Amino acid sequence: MTSSFEKIEHIGIAVSDIASAEITYSKMLGVEPYKREKIFSQGVITSFFKVGDNKIELLQAISPDSAIAKHILKRGEGIHHIAYLVSDIRKEMKRLSDAGYLLIDTEPMQGADNMLVAFIHPKSTGGSLVELCESVV
Amino acid sequence: MTSSFEKIEHIGIAVSDIASAEITYSKMLGVEPYKREKIFSQGVITSFFKVGDNKIELLQAISPDSAIAKHILKRGEGIHHIAYLVSDIRKEMKRLSDAGYLLIDTEPMQGADNMLVAFIHPKSTGGSLVELCESVV
Repeated sequence: MTSSFEKIEHIGIAVSDIASAEITYSKMLGVEPYKREKIFSQGVITSFFKVGDNKIELLQAISPDSAIAKHILKRGEGIHHIAYLVSDIRKEMKRLSDAGYLLIDTEPMQGADNMLVAFIHPKSTGGSLVELCESVV
Repeated sequence: MTSSFEKIEHIGIAVSDIASAEITYSKMLGVEPYKREKIFSQGVITSFFKVGDNKIELLQAISPDSAIAKHILKRGEGIHHIAYLVSDIRKEMKRLSDAGYLLIDTEPMQGADNMLVAFIHPKSTGGSLVELCESVV
Protein backbone atom coordinates (compact mmCIF):
# COMPACT_ATOMS: atom_id res chain seq x y z
CA MET A 1 0.00 0.00 0.00
CA THR A 2 1.50 3.33 -1.02
CA SER A 3 0.86 6.68 0.60
CA SER A 4 -1.45 9.26 -0.98
CA PHE A 5 1.49 11.64 -0.48
CA GLU A 6 4.45 11.10 -2.83
CA LYS A 7 7.29 12.21 -0.55
CA ILE A 8 8.39 14.88 1.91
CA GLU A 9 8.78 17.82 -0.47
CA HIS A 10 10.44 20.07 2.11
CA ILE A 11 10.69 21.01 5.75
CA GLY A 12 10.00 24.65 6.54
CA ILE A 13 12.19 26.20 9.24
CA ALA A 14 11.40 29.56 10.84
CA VAL A 15 14.49 31.73 11.32
CA SER A 16 15.06 35.27 12.60
CA ASP A 17 17.95 36.16 10.29
CA ILE A 18 17.99 34.31 6.98
CA ALA A 19 21.52 35.43 6.03
CA SER A 20 22.93 33.99 9.25
CA ALA A 21 20.79 30.83 9.00
CA GLU A 22 21.98 30.29 5.42
CA ILE A 23 25.56 30.10 6.70
CA THR A 24 24.57 27.66 9.48
CA TYR A 25 22.63 25.43 7.07
CA SER A 26 25.19 25.61 4.25
CA LYS A 27 27.93 24.41 6.58
CA MET A 28 25.76 21.72 8.15
CA LEU A 29 24.23 20.35 4.95
CA GLY A 30 27.44 20.80 2.98
CA VAL A 31 25.61 22.54 0.13
CA GLU A 32 24.74 26.14 -0.83
CA PRO A 33 21.14 27.37 -1.15
CA TYR A 34 19.89 27.12 -4.75
CA LYS A 35 17.20 29.77 -4.54
CA ARG A 36 16.10 32.79 -2.52
CA GLU A 37 12.55 33.99 -3.08
CA LYS A 38 10.18 36.54 -1.50
CA ILE A 39 6.56 35.49 -1.15
CA PHE A 40 4.80 38.79 -0.51
CA SER A 41 1.36 37.18 -0.05
CA GLN A 42 2.77 35.24 2.93
CA GLY A 43 5.06 37.99 4.20
CA VAL A 44 8.23 35.89 4.02
CA ILE A 45 11.60 35.58 2.37
CA THR A 46 12.65 31.99 1.72
CA SER A 47 15.90 30.18 0.98
CA PHE A 48 16.00 26.62 -0.40
CA PHE A 49 18.56 23.82 -0.05
CA LYS A 50 18.52 20.43 -1.80
CA VAL A 51 19.17 17.34 0.33
CA GLY A 52 18.94 14.40 -2.05
CA ASP A 53 15.38 14.43 -3.38
CA ASN A 54 14.12 16.58 -0.49
CA LYS A 55 14.49 20.26 0.36
CA ILE A 56 14.98 22.48 3.37
CA GLU A 57 13.18 25.83 3.23
CA LEU A 58 14.36 28.59 5.57
CA LEU A 59 11.70 31.25 6.21
CA GLN A 60 12.21 34.72 7.62
CA ALA A 61 9.31 37.11 8.18
CA ILE A 62 9.29 40.37 6.20
CA SER A 63 5.93 41.38 7.67
CA PRO A 64 4.96 41.38 11.38
CA ASP A 65 1.60 39.85 10.36
CA SER A 66 3.15 36.78 8.74
CA ALA A 67 2.71 33.33 10.24
CA ILE A 68 6.50 33.12 10.60
CA ALA A 69 6.71 36.31 12.69
CA LYS A 70 3.97 34.94 14.97
CA HIS A 71 5.65 31.53 15.21
CA ILE A 72 8.97 33.09 16.26
CA LEU A 73 7.27 35.32 18.85
CA LYS A 74 5.41 32.33 20.35
CA ARG A 75 7.88 29.44 19.95
CA GLY A 76 11.20 30.88 18.81
CA GLU A 77 13.18 29.67 15.82
CA GLY A 78 12.81 26.09 14.64
CA ILE A 79 10.83 23.66 12.53
CA HIS A 80 7.64 25.30 11.25
CA HIS A 81 5.95 22.84 8.89
CA ILE A 82 6.21 19.58 6.95
CA ALA A 83 5.34 19.81 3.26
CA TYR A 84 4.28 16.76 1.28
CA LEU A 85 4.27 16.50 -2.51
CA VAL A 86 0.93 15.49 -4.00
CA SER A 87 0.02 15.05 -7.67
CA ASP A 88 -3.43 16.69 -7.42
CA ILE A 89 -3.75 19.20 -4.58
CA ARG A 90 -7.50 19.82 -5.03
CA LYS A 91 -8.22 16.10 -4.89
CA GLU A 92 -6.13 15.71 -1.70
CA MET A 93 -7.76 18.78 -0.11
CA LYS A 94 -11.18 17.25 -0.76
CA ARG A 95 -10.11 13.80 0.49
CA LEU A 96 -8.72 15.27 3.72
CA SER A 97 -11.62 17.65 4.28
CA ASP A 98 -14.09 14.78 3.77
CA ALA A 99 -12.08 12.73 6.30
CA GLY A 100 -12.48 15.46 8.93
CA TYR A 101 -9.17 17.31 8.65
CA LEU A 102 -9.37 21.08 9.14
CA LEU A 103 -7.97 22.92 6.12
CA ILE A 104 -6.60 26.42 6.67
CA ASP A 105 -6.94 27.23 2.97
CA THR A 106 -10.11 26.56 1.01
CA GLU A 107 -8.31 27.09 -2.32
CA PRO A 108 -4.69 26.32 -3.27
CA MET A 109 -2.46 29.41 -3.36
CA GLN A 110 0.80 30.17 -5.13
CA GLY A 111 3.68 29.16 -2.84
CA ALA A 112 7.45 29.35 -3.12
CA ASP A 113 9.51 27.34 -5.61
CA ASN A 114 6.78 26.91 -8.26
CA MET A 115 4.27 25.11 -6.08
CA LEU A 116 0.54 25.37 -5.51
CA VAL A 117 0.14 24.99 -1.76
CA ALA A 118 -2.50 24.59 0.96
CA PHE A 119 -2.13 24.14 4.71
CA ILE A 120 -3.84 21.74 7.12
CA HIS A 121 -4.40 23.01 10.66
CA PRO A 122 -2.18 21.48 13.40
CA LYS A 123 -5.35 20.93 15.47
CA SER A 124 -6.33 18.07 13.19
CA THR A 125 -2.86 16.57 12.64
CA GLY A 126 -1.75 16.14 16.25
CA GLY A 127 0.14 19.42 16.54
CA SER A 128 2.13 19.59 13.29
CA LEU A 129 1.45 22.17 10.61
CA VAL A 130 1.14 20.27 7.30
CA GLU A 131 1.48 21.77 3.82
CA LEU A 132 0.37 20.10 0.60
CA CYS A 133 2.38 21.01 -2.51
CA GLU A 134 1.60 20.39 -6.17
CA SER A 135 4.35 21.25 -8.63
CA VAL A 136 3.28 23.72 -11.32
CA VAL A 137 6.53 23.75 -13.31
CA MET B 1 27.42 20.36 -5.57
CA THR B 2 25.65 17.64 -3.58
CA SER B 3 24.84 17.72 0.11
CA SER B 4 26.89 15.77 2.66
CA PHE B 5 23.52 14.43 3.80
CA GLU B 6 21.84 11.94 1.45
CA LYS B 7 18.19 12.73 2.13
CA ILE B 8 15.66 13.41 4.86
CA GLU B 9 15.48 9.98 6.45
CA HIS B 10 12.51 10.80 8.64
CA ILE B 11 10.70 13.47 10.62
CA GLY B 12 10.16 12.68 14.29
CA ILE B 13 6.83 13.82 15.73
CA ALA B 14 6.14 13.90 19.47
CA VAL B 15 2.68 12.60 20.36
CA SER B 16 0.85 12.00 23.65
CA ASP B 17 -1.10 8.93 22.56
CA ILE B 18 0.52 6.88 19.82
CA ALA B 19 -2.56 4.73 19.14
CA SER B 20 -4.68 7.80 18.48
CA ALA B 21 -1.91 9.50 16.47
CA GLU B 22 -1.52 6.36 14.33
CA ILE B 23 -5.15 6.71 13.27
CA THR B 24 -4.72 10.42 12.48
CA TYR B 25 -1.55 9.79 10.46
CA SER B 26 -2.85 6.67 8.70
CA LYS B 27 -5.88 8.54 7.45
CA MET B 28 -3.88 11.62 6.47
CA LEU B 29 -0.99 9.84 4.76
CA GLY B 30 -3.24 7.17 3.27
CA VAL B 31 -0.97 4.37 4.48
CA GLU B 32 -0.70 2.16 7.59
CA PRO B 33 2.37 2.19 9.88
CA TYR B 34 4.88 -0.51 8.90
CA LYS B 35 6.58 -0.86 12.25
CA ARG B 36 6.11 -0.19 15.96
CA GLU B 37 9.21 -0.37 18.13
CA LYS B 38 10.13 0.42 21.73
CA ILE B 39 13.50 2.06 22.30
CA PHE B 40 14.06 1.56 26.01
CA SER B 41 17.35 3.50 26.06
CA GLN B 42 15.45 6.60 24.89
CA GLY B 43 12.26 5.91 26.85
CA VAL B 44 10.00 5.94 23.79
CA ILE B 45 7.67 3.86 21.70
CA THR B 46 7.81 4.64 17.99
CA SER B 47 5.60 4.04 14.97
CA PHE B 48 6.87 4.40 11.39
CA PHE B 49 5.12 5.32 8.14
CA LYS B 50 6.62 5.33 4.64
CA VAL B 51 5.98 8.37 2.44
CA GLY B 52 7.77 7.67 -0.82
CA ASP B 53 11.45 7.37 0.07
CA ASN B 54 11.00 9.23 3.39
CA LYS B 55 9.48 8.24 6.72
CA ILE B 56 7.38 9.74 9.48
CA GLU B 57 8.26 8.56 13.01
CA LEU B 58 5.67 9.07 15.74
CA LEU B 59 7.19 9.07 19.23
CA GLN B 60 5.36 8.62 22.53
CA ALA B 61 7.19 8.74 25.87
CA ILE B 62 7.16 5.58 28.00
CA SER B 63 9.38 7.20 30.64
CA PRO B 64 8.87 10.64 32.25
CA ASP B 65 12.63 11.22 31.85
CA SER B 66 12.58 10.83 28.07
CA ALA B 67 13.25 13.77 25.76
CA ILE B 68 9.77 13.28 24.28
CA ALA B 69 8.05 13.60 27.68
CA LYS B 70 9.99 16.83 28.31
CA HIS B 71 9.21 18.16 24.81
CA ILE B 72 5.48 17.59 25.28
CA LEU B 73 5.50 19.23 28.71
CA LYS B 74 7.31 22.28 27.35
CA ARG B 75 5.96 22.65 23.81
CA GLY B 76 3.05 20.25 23.40
CA GLU B 77 2.67 17.72 20.61
CA GLY B 78 4.32 18.37 17.27
CA ILE B 79 7.44 18.11 15.16
CA HIS B 80 10.38 17.04 17.32
CA HIS B 81 13.36 16.49 15.03
CA ILE B 82 14.62 16.21 11.45
CA ALA B 83 16.71 13.12 10.72
CA TYR B 84 19.14 13.02 7.79
CA LEU B 85 20.61 9.87 6.27
CA VAL B 86 24.41 9.82 6.13
CA SER B 87 26.68 7.06 4.85
CA ASP B 88 29.29 7.37 7.62
CA ILE B 89 27.93 8.78 10.87
CA ARG B 90 31.30 9.01 12.66
CA LYS B 91 32.79 10.95 9.75
CA GLU B 92 29.82 13.38 9.72
CA MET B 93 29.97 13.78 13.52
CA LYS B 94 33.64 14.73 13.25
CA ARG B 95 33.02 17.07 10.29
CA LEU B 96 30.24 18.88 12.15
CA SER B 97 32.07 18.99 15.48
CA ASP B 98 35.15 20.43 13.75
CA ALA B 99 32.91 23.03 12.09
CA GLY B 100 31.66 24.19 15.51
CA TYR B 101 28.32 22.34 15.78
CA LEU B 102 27.42 21.14 19.27
CA LEU B 103 26.86 17.39 19.30
CA ILE B 104 24.58 16.00 22.03
CA ASP B 105 26.08 12.50 21.59
CA THR B 106 29.81 11.87 21.51
CA GLU B 107 29.30 8.34 20.15
CA PRO B 108 26.58 6.98 17.83
CA MET B 109 23.87 5.01 19.62
CA GLN B 110 21.42 2.36 18.48
CA GLY B 111 18.23 4.10 17.34
CA ALA B 112 14.91 2.87 16.00
CA ASP B 113 14.47 1.11 12.64
CA ASN B 114 18.00 -0.33 12.38
CA MET B 115 19.87 2.95 12.52
CA LEU B 116 22.94 4.24 14.30
CA VAL B 117 22.00 7.73 15.41
CA ALA B 118 23.45 10.88 16.97
CA PHE B 119 21.84 14.23 17.72
CA ILE B 120 23.05 17.79 17.09
CA HIS B 121 21.95 20.42 19.61
CA PRO B 122 19.30 22.92 18.41
CA LYS B 123 21.50 25.72 19.81
CA SER B 124 23.91 25.25 16.93
CA THR B 125 21.37 24.62 14.15
CA GLY B 126 19.15 27.68 14.62
CA GLY B 127 16.56 26.01 16.84
CA SER B 128 15.92 22.64 15.14
CA LEU B 129 16.93 19.34 16.70
CA VAL B 130 18.88 17.41 14.06
CA GLU B 131 19.50 13.65 14.03
CA LEU B 132 22.10 11.89 11.90
CA CYS B 133 21.22 8.32 10.88
CA GLU B 134 23.43 5.61 9.38
CA SER B 135 21.67 2.44 8.27
CA VAL B 136 23.04 -0.72 9.89
CA VAL B 137 20.85 -3.22 8.02
